Amino acid sequence: MEQIEGKIGVEAALSARQRKISLLVIREGLHPHQIEEILAEARIRNIPIKYASREEIDAMAHGKTHGGIIALASPKPLTPIEMLLDQIAAKKSSHAGALLLLEGIDDSQNLGFTLRSAEALGIDGVLLKKHLWDFDSNAVARASSGAYERLPLVLLDDAEKVLLRLKNQGFALYGCIANARRTIYDIDLTGPVVLAIGGEKRGLSAGVRNLCDRLIRIPMVANIGSLSLSHAASIAMAELSRQRWQKNNPPANQIERS
Amino acid sequence: MEQIEGKIGVEAALSARQRKISLLVIREGLHPHQIEEILAEARIRNIPIKYASREEIDAMAHGKTHGGIIALASPKPLTPIEMLLDQIAAKKSSHAGALLLLEGIDDSQNLGFTLRSAEALGIDGVLLKKHLWDFDSNAVARASSGAYERLPLVLLDDAEKVLLRLKNQGFALYGCIANARRTIYDIDLTGPVVLAIGGEKRGLSAGVRNLCDRLIRIPMVANIGSLSLSHAASIAMAELSRQRWQKNNPPANQIERS
Repeated sequence: MEQIEGKIGVEAALSARQRKISLLVIREGLHPHQIEEILAEARIRNIPIKYASREEIDAMAHGKTHGGIIALASPKPLTPIEMLLDQIAAKKSSHAGALLLLEGIDDSQNLGFTLRSAEALGIDGVLLKKHLWDFDSNAVARASSGAYERLPLVLLDDAEKVLLRLKNQGFALYGCIANARRTIYDIDLTGPVVLAIGGEKRGLSAGVRNLCDRLIRIPMVANIGSLSLSHAASIAMAELSRQRWQKNNPPANQIERS
Repeated sequence: MEQIEGKIGVEAALSARQRKISLLVIREGLHPHQIEEILAEARIRNIPIKYASREEIDAMAHGKTHGGIIALASPKPLTPIEMLLDQIAAKKSSHAGALLLLEGIDDSQNLGFTLRSAEALGIDGVLLKKHLWDFDSNAVARASSGAYERLPLVLLDDAEKVLLRLKNQGFALYGCIANARRTIYDIDLTGPVVLAIGGEKRGLSAGVRNLCDRLIRIPMVANIGSLSLSHAASIAMAELSRQRWQKNNPPANQIERS
């Protein structure tokens, strides 16, 4: 059983309907209109509610941002890669799949932030190597601002096998590394794409790198500074999103609109 | 007196030469070749070194990422806006100034991450309202991975006066808000620009918003999810960087290069 803490996470878990929620704990005195939708959904789904004092709920919480509401829930179900491919195929025909593969991410909060950006920027799902999964799911969920509840997350037993399969299905695999010759602006990201981002210390593994169709980098000021993994990932995903957005909103339309 | 913790921060502070460093504390047994450059610089600048046990240095540190090296230093000097404008004017003539104004950032770590991205993406300096400056500078510095030591930081007493002045000097002021009609991709960010980013809760203040030449947004998936302030800021700064990069690297050149 896991705890989902805070209104945003609990609302997201209720509406995503991926987890079984067995109990809602609400601080006594919390104004019902603040959590109207949560209470309505709990009624519909017959989820019991326990009212607790500020002290009780503080003692129960893992973090400090629960704001008086905690849900006890089954763990978030992971998505098999087949199911994710079916979900992508079920989207409108103009939609090209967009996946993010993360390697070497070592901090729950950074993973949460990355999931948040991934969802906002239209990524269909995030792939992580199974043996690297060692995260505090509460911390991931909190930092993700609800995205953890909604975004498909795939844990890969055999990353190379899955990547080969994705490539056979028409996905291009682009690996972001610091010293690549090409940049994220030099390649077409409007087709089905897997963006692979490595950790700050070791970058991408040789296994993933060898499968990449292209290695690409984010142009930066020469020799000074660097980007954190979650910020590098967000910038690369935003470029994918920009290219797709501009394909659907060519300049002529923009002028007409303004 | 402040503490700068960890090799990256200490190296950055030494090379940025903005702070007076009065003492280096180094863990006994730390291999000299790991901190060769720091030791050389300390010798040149006559900075005393104190060797301390693991227990002593752990007790002294505010964070856990010092890795056996701490510097005692004067606070980072802030940059007056006049000095920042002089610094921009001294860069090569093709360089258009790029400034970031942050409002409503309420977390030291997020500020640090934003400074790190700002430096990597070529921002000349970051402006913050003085009365909002309430950060743990150690935490800012740690998250910034050295950028805090190098990047000019301006605290504004009277933000509107400074923004009017920047506009008079040819800077365009673009405010990022969630519901703007135009996007970051619709406007030209290659001239002198101040990007204004508001906090996640309240967005931009009315005072700043009223001075904006344009309000712009980052296109996102409809109605789902959001970006954290540091990630939104990084994506907007990356778009500025992209437009400038592509201006200097038109597609024809790219094809020749590849």
